[in-house]
Amino acid sequence: MRAAIAGASGYAGGELLRLLLSHPEIEIGALTAKSSAGTALGAHQPHLTPLADRILLDTTAETLAGHDLVFLALPHGQSAAVAEQLGDGTLVVDCGADFRLADPAAWDHFYGGAHAGTWPYGLPELPGQRDRLRGASRIAVPGCFPTAVTLAMFPAFAAGLVEPDVVVVAATGTSGAGKSLKPHLLGSEVMGSVSAYGVGGVHRHTPEMEQNLSPLAGGPVKVSFTAMLAPMSRGILATCTAPARAELTPQTLRETYEAATKDEPFLRLLPQGQWPATSMTLGANTAVLQVALDERAGRVVVVIALDNLTKGTAGGAIQSANLALGLPEELGLPLNGVAP
Amino acid sequence: MRAAIAGASGYAGGELLRLLLSHPEIEIGALTAKSSAGTALGAHQPHLTPLADRILLDTTAETLAGHDLVFLALPHGQSAAVAEQLGDGTLVVDCGADFRLADPAAWDHFYGGAHAGTWPYGLPELPGQRDRLRGASRIAVPGCFPTAVTLAMFPAFAAGLVEPDVVVVAATGTSGAGKSLKPHLLGSEVMGSVSAYGVGGVHRHTPEMEQNLSPLAGGPVKVSFTAMLAPMSRGILATCTAPARAELTPQTLRETYEAATKDEPFLRLLPQGQWPATSMTLGANTAVLQVALDERAGRVVVVIALDNLTKGTAGGAIQSANLALGLPEELGLPLNGVAP
Amino acid sequence: MRAAIAGASGYAGGELLRLLLSHPEIEIGALTAKSSAGTALGAHQPHLTPLADRILLDTTAETLAGHDLVFLALPHGQSAAVAEQLGDGTLVVDCGADFRLADPAAWDHFYGGAHAGTWPYGLPELPGQRDRLRGASRIAVPGCFPTAVTLAMFPAFAAGLVEPDVVVVAATGTSGAGKSLKPHLLGSEVMGSVSAYGVGGVHRHTPEMEQNLSPLAGGPVKVSFTAMLAPMSRGILATCTAPARAELTPQTLRETYEAATKDEPFLRLLPQGQWPATSMTLGANTAVLQVALDERAGRVVVVIALDNLTKGTAGGAIQSANLALGLPEELGLPLNGVAP
Amino acid sequence: MRAAIAGASGYAGGELLRLLLSHPEIEIGALTAKSSAGTALGAHQPHLTPLADRILLDTTAETLAGHDLVFLALPHGQSAAVAEQLGDGTLVVDCGADFRLADPAAWDHFYGGAHAGTWPYGLPELPGQRDRLRGASRIAVPGCFPTAVTLAMFPAFAAGLVEPDVVVVAATGTSGAGKSLKPHLLGSEVMGSVSAYGVGGVHRHTPEMEQNLSPLAGGPVKVSFTAMLAPMSRGILATCTAPARAELTPQTLRETYEAATKDEPFLRLLPQGQWPATSMTLGANTAVLQVALDERAGRVVVVIALDNLTKGTAGGAIQSANLALGLPEELGLPLNGVAP
Repeated sequence: MRAAIAGASGYAGGELLRLLLSHPEIEIGALTAKSSAGTALGAHQPHLTPLADRILLDTTAETLAGHDLVFLALPHGQSAAVAEQLGDGTLVVDCGADFRLADPAAWDHFYGGAHAGTWPYGLPELPGQRDRLRGASRIAVPGCFPTAVTLAMFPAFAAGLVEPDVVVVAATGTSGAGKSLKPHLLGSEVMGSVSAYGVGGVHRHTPEMEQNLSPLAGGPVKVSFTAMLAPMSRGILATCTAPARAELTPQTLRETYEAATKDEPFLRLLPQGQWPATSMTLGANTAVLQVALDERAGRVVVVIALDNLTKGTAGGAIQSANLALGLPEELGLPLNGVAP
Repeated sequence: MRAAIAGASGYAGGELLRLLLSHPEIEIGALTAKSSAGTALGAHQPHLTPLADRILLDTTAETLAGHDLVFLALPHGQSAAVAEQLGDGTLVVDCGADFRLADPAAWDHFYGGAHAGTWPYGLPELPGQRDRLRGASRIAVPGCFPTAVTLAMFPAFAAGLVEPDVVVVAATGTSGAGKSLKPHLLGSEVMGSVSAYGVGGVHRHTPEMEQNLSPLAGGPVKVSFTAMLAPMSRGILATCTAPARAELTPQTLRETYEAATKDEPFLRLLPQGQWPATSMTLGANTAVLQVALDERAGRVVVVIALDNLTKGTAGGAIQSANLALGLPEELGLPLNGVAP
Repeated sequence: MRAAIAGASGYAGGELLRLLLSHPEIEIGALTAKSSAGTALGAHQPHLTPLADRILLDTTAETLAGHDLVFLALPHGQSAAVAEQLGDGTLVVDCGADFRLADPAAWDHFYGGAHAGTWPYGLPELPGQRDRLRGASRIAVPGCFPTAVTLAMFPAFAAGLVEPDVVVVAATGTSGAGKSLKPHLLGSEVMGSVSAYGVGGVHRHTPEMEQNLSPLAGGPVKVSFTAMLAPMSRGILATCTAPARAELTPQTLRETYEAATKDEPFLRLLPQGQWPATSMTLGANTAVLQVALDERAGRVVVVIALDNLTKGTAGGAIQSANLALGLPEELGLPLNGVAP
Repeated sequence: MRAAIAGASGYAGGELLRLLLSHPEIEIGALTAKSSAGTALGAHQPHLTPLADRILLDTTAETLAGHDLVFLALPHGQSAAVAEQLGDGTLVVDCGADFRLADPAAWDHFYGGAHAGTWPYGLPELPGQRDRLRGASRIAVPGCFPTAVTLAMFPAFAAGLVEPDVVVVAATGTSGAGKSLKPHLLGSEVMGSVSAYGVGGVHRHTPEMEQNLSPLAGGPVKVSFTAMLAPMSRGILATCTAPARAELTPQTLRETYEAATKDEPFLRLLPQGQWPATSMTLGANTAVLQVALDERAGRVVVVIALDNLTKGTAGGAIQSANLALGLPEELGLPLNGVAP
């Protein structure tokens, strides 16, 4: 099978290529870009030695045609126009936000403008979702923060352990913001500093978290979400907490998470006493988590780490694509991080 | 006035010295240490050029005697033995935890062992506290996280804006852990990674936060606290959130914080739209904060940044010492950070 | 005395302001910028709390008029036009390159275009230079790398210890490149990575190093210079090496450097066995150095660390301005770094 | 084939395991350690999810017996005692220094004590070396800096382009120093700072560089080597310069390097105008290089980047082991880095 990558000069595009180079069943086809069309990939992704001399094509229906699957790693709002030119026989995997939300009102509130539609949501670990992805021809890859928060909290909500009032504070590396040339993303600004952004209910990933968790809770889940930008290139560490239901014991909590993760190839509940660090997952398609019951405060606390570009974007995209294509879900996806 | 510093080879001791070198009324006296006694300060604090050739003395009652004030920057549990040998005529400022907590049961639960006692708490911004520090002969310097969380939340509790159920997630730089030779503090481990620790109600700074906020709330405040270690040497960024009282408006919230901070020399409420970053406060005795009312989630969110070694330890210590000594509170304390 | 700062929104401008806020004889006057004119300084320099509400003016002859001194922290090539509108009664201190080089051919080779002229060179430690700066009305602040290399090598050349064939490799933090929005300066690109640039005799700071050292050597000095961009915001660490003259002994080398540095307020030769780190000088106007004679390779090796924004730009500028204004050379300049 | 790893809890051991997990012909056998024996690998290498539950054995002749190959990732000086208990039928690959040097006098001068002997040197790219490694039963893995410097300079010396007087300044990440609990390796010390060490002809990797280059030069090569510790976990960026022979042109220089690298699977000469960054090679077994002729200074400058743990240690070890075992040299070794 051959895959085209639209947006190959960016961070998500580069990570897709890094992973696909090790994928035994997917061959890399056209690489496209916008302003960088005509230049060699090596100028943008010098770490991808085997592809350094590949020339970037323009992102058009023509250059993307004739592939079995097309990954879209485009700025938000640009996927719909491209996707509609690709037939149903092509698997289209959108790493952008355009097709993630089911509720047009939520789309309008957080993104503004017309809602492009809703595609099957590419998070196989979400209960029931794996089956919906098999054979799909369109996939909306989740946001990196919603991936983290959903993987952290789905066991608690599915088992009814917590109240639907979640507080999430998550630190992320700078690659989540892409290669945008903005002053606050300069190395001089981010090194040695942690900052907050998207505070107070305005971060666009918030409704996606609520959309994922509410069905499991059997009613609306409220999420208070705060993002922190940390001085690292990759990684998300999310602390997720919700009020514990009265009768919850530490044993039940742990057993619930053990049961929910033990058959998941990419989730790892750490041994008791060990807490997640993003370095455990750098470059891997894994998420590591740990849980605690804070009996003084009456809260369940779940901490999860993953790589925003791998499990949080490109690895998650390939995992779902594997399902859609009838391949083994784990195919070509690294279980190891790179550390230290 | 002459000040001795016990623990001058460590990070808190070094920061005390850096600040005291610019203090117009305090002269630097004896510098003491334990295992480093007999070596030159320049081997441990090479950034303090004017003191590079000073020889570290042993930490004993004799070397600390004869000073107007003594700063203790010792490992937890070692301050009491030193302090009791220093008379009431000497101002003793303890940067450790030994004398922070009022409740022996909380001490025993979180620290274990016998409670050394309770000293006036060195956080002048805490309502009513400034007066208690004037003329004091003993000061317990707050922990760095409790400083951040208390400065973030005291206006909300004092004005009755929130419910007494606080969730705090705070990222800190590595200097908060001191110069301890532990594997997880190695550069190879911390660079490029954010990790969680002290999760689930076990972090020792938790009861101190509750102790500070409960009197303002008129009843017990519960704090769920999670700490993150971020890849930077200095800085704390704390996200603090609590359920908003039903009638709260964004205007009231902002006005409450404006009123609470406008006369505080070291607190700065940022203009609307700007969010705290730890780089805004590096090396300064300031704390910068911003507030939001998340109306969807029904929560007040306060984000605060400060330098854990300056306002969070050594600067806060000198600020309180200034009050105790009858000096202007701001004397010798930097209002500027060093950035980028 | 009142000082205006042109380019107050950039990194050099911010550092000038940070230092001037502690200067007892210089008051801060107009702050000017180009594209940021009309905005508050706090949006660009949020670490400068006391100036947060100051509004940036446009950089024009009018806004800069009426000050005793004007610091220009402008992109290269823009200083001449501004300076010629300021009379000789105003001390103009240019942090840019425009007036550093004496040789128009070198200017043309490395910068291209017309040579603006030559101003007194603002490096007081260069033998003979201190006197040339007293009473000057124009000062060309040295480049950050030439400052480091000249301070490292002037004693060796002045004492005739080495051959005039210098190899310099210097690592710098990202702030040396300013706030330019270029992809290679993004945090995602610079964190976790060291890269080379300006290699092979093309770096613009090379002729300035040769200009400083050749008179001391009594003939042309060749410098092979390579710059490395390191994952830190501030700091330069330069390794400078040249062939030792045959008879040189380690004792002579050390004594030469001791003699050359002992009366310099901002130079510190480290004790034997201790090697420079940029953290020793962060935010300070100091340079720390160490020397070795590599008898196997027949070379003198000098390593120097300084803060590119402080001693390498803004601090050096104020040091020279103090001389020009008849003030004590050290006035208002920090001898302490901020560490860790 | 089954491989044992002695020293599996350290950084070199962890990198060997990471790479071997993707090696199609080598199975991971015993994992051994000293002080960590009896603990789970996941406590030390949490990024190696598939091996997290493996228990570390003690490093003894018994635990290492019965494997086709044994990788030793031990502190210097400990390999000989272990190796002599393993028969010639076992391929022993030593990542330490014990068997690298041919000259006992150089060993004594730089390391002190008795010379353990000399094993085939595991740098296949060194002219003539590839054949010596085929079928070898003992391999001495080169030091990380000598790998970088030799790969950078062998083409110039083999083609007679430069004088035998090399200056090398190389920045490295902290993982090169291993997991040693030393104050200068703490995150608080290394973040935001570049420092020098091993200056003046004392770094132990110096004689190894000279040993590699001298035969190519047809006479003794002198190397002046200075190491810098940079704030990153992984990576070496080495600037290597030597006087150009009089007749050298930029064209000849480039063609020489093109010819020397074009058939090397792990060496990549970058396109003209692009300079190496360590991020290009993070986690890859590649080295990227660029060359320039500085005609003003009369010097060839070669800059090379590689990952000290991959190509510089564990990847290089597996590459040589592949040759010794009769496997394809590239087997199981990544050509892609992980970036950003």
